[in-house]
Amino acid sequence: DYQLHEKMNIDKKYRSIGILGARTGAGPEIMAIDEAVKATNTEVLSVELARDTKGGAGHGSLIIIGSEDVSDARRAIEVALETLNQTNGDVYSNEAGHLEFQYTARASFAIEKAFGAPVGKSFGLICAGPAAIGVVLADTAVKAANVEVVGYASPGNGGTAHSNEVILTITGDSGAVRQAVIAAREIGLKLLGSMGADPVSVTKPYI
Amino acid sequence: DYQLHEKMNIDKKYRSIGILGARTGAGPEIMAIDEAVKATNTEVLSVELARDTKGGAGHGSLIIIGSEDVSDARRAIEVALETLNQTNGDVYSNEAGHLEFQYTARASFAIEKAFGAPVGKSFGLICAGPAAIGVVLADTAVKAANVEVVGYASPGNGGTAHSNEVILTITGDSGAVRQAVIAAREIGLKLLGSMGADPVSVTKPYI
Amino acid sequence: DYQLHEKMNIDKKYRSIGILGARTGAGPEIMAIDEAVKATNTEVLSVELARDTKGGAGHGSLIIIGSEDVSDARRAIEVALETLNQTNGDVYSNEAGHLEFQYTARASFAIEKAFGAPVGKSFGLICAGPAAIGVVLADTAVKAANVEVVGYASPGNGGTAHSNEVILTITGDSGAVRQAVIAAREIGLKLLGSMGADPVSVTKPYI
Repeated sequence: DYQLHEKMNIDKKYRSIGILGARTGAGPEIMAIDEAVKATNTEVLSVELARDTKGGAGHGSLIIIGSEDVSDARRAIEVALETLNQTNGDVYSNEAGHLEFQYTARASFAIEKAFGAPVGKSFGLICAGPAAIGVVLADTAVKAANVEVVGYASPGNGGTAHSNEVILTITGDSGAVRQAVIAAREIGLKLLGSMGADPVSVTKPYI
Repeated sequence: DYQLHEKMNIDKKYRSIGILGARTGAGPEIMAIDEAVKATNTEVLSVELARDTKGGAGHGSLIIIGSEDVSDARRAIEVALETLNQTNGDVYSNEAGHLEFQYTARASFAIEKAFGAPVGKSFGLICAGPAAIGVVLADTAVKAANVEVVGYASPGNGGTAHSNEVILTITGDSGAVRQAVIAAREIGLKLLGSMGADPVSVTKPYI
Repeated sequence: DYQLHEKMNIDKKYRSIGILGARTGAGPEIMAIDEAVKATNTEVLSVELARDTKGGAGHGSLIIIGSEDVSDARRAIEVALETLNQTNGDVYSNEAGHLEFQYTARASFAIEKAFGAPVGKSFGLICAGPAAIGVVLADTAVKAANVEVVGYASPGNGGTAHSNEVILTITGDSGAVRQAVIAAREIGLKLLGSMGADPVSVTKPYI
């Protein structure tokens, strides 16, 4: 319906849209859609972070992709769902909070849309809630390797839906980005682990 | 106190105010106040949506009405409380999310204040969380009948308190508005039901 | 790292930062940091309110302080942690909601940063969730004594992270401020108590 297209700010040429949403999680969904748009003839139309009581200190999400052909949008969502198992690999939580780490050697359009990171370059995400842990991890990451900061999001300064998280996004040389993410992950697991049970990956670490 | 009136943006002429708030729910409260202002000599001063951990993926609310005479504000709150049982009739939820539908043949000032819908015309509301379901229902509603879209609210684009919901509001011919709401309800109950237990009305469906 | 300093809007001169965060609570943390900066050579760099599922209808928080010397920031956090027991003294909750009251005869820079209240003057905070209770308490407070309203924060009008709370902040003569806070506390305990179990202080009332 073109009236709804307009209210949703969606170009009329996208006759078909694909929707990926979650109650718990935004980073894994964005990373998964990023792989999906690399693999299919689709475009990322919007990425929104949502507050959700299922999301602990973190986010839920709503991602909309568009295609001119319905089979492309459907294929993209299939690819994203297959990729979610991997992109949830470095999400850790316990009763005290949660940690999330993401890394890709080549960012695509979902990452650009969501975080303003440069397409085609290496990208890393360091996130933790409560936000105080996130500040420590952001500091750890930028000291661990020579990376460029894309963004720093916090509860009151934008980039989060006022959630109790800090999200640091980085780009640069792929080895340095990966090293910064791994250094933050090491400290994060120690810090969160000292506040509660051992934080365990919900699937299998991939970075 | 006039100092507080000013900070709350309330005209001094309202010597008496009535307050309706909820931890879980905003739509039913707005619809109930809408009936209350039709029936009494009061005005809707503000309608605010709140995030609340009791609200699941959805909202709590704070609604303030004003009257020059204290008995009017009191009567309006009484009417609203009596009406809540009905306006909660098409609220459904299970462990996966929630659905809400509202319909009136004649919108009044609470609906205008909250959603910008035209007074005196038919009004429908289609809401679902997680937001991904809401996108599908919005699409269903506008395709089901010839209605005019008043607003489309989503987690990151305004109209929600960053909650994990999509809210579509519509106006137009009363038969068409009702038809659009019922079509969305049918699909919504199927969709949410496929993700968890059978979604049941918290009171009794009224649309 | 100076790149991160810039993204966080932190002056380079602060070679050391201290971080105080919470999943449940913002007022007690702000008041505790306020005592800490009075007692140490530190500055409050940012105060952010966060939404957090552990926070009920209320807030979590992230507060960052800076110092040129690492021992100052560390000492300030120690002072704040010691003070938290007191500043949590007039926080009350039950299954229906929560109340918070704060009072100091002399506000310092954390209170100024967080609420815009004048430094060196008496300061009071009246907060309740759900927000409807907060409106009643704000009205009670300003009628109880001749105080000046610093701010009125509500779910949709700023000053909260869209949480289901109203926060009234006041200044003025220290006797009047204290009297207004105590009057609101009395009504708040009655109101919340009528909606659920007896609200009990989490530590020991101090006002």
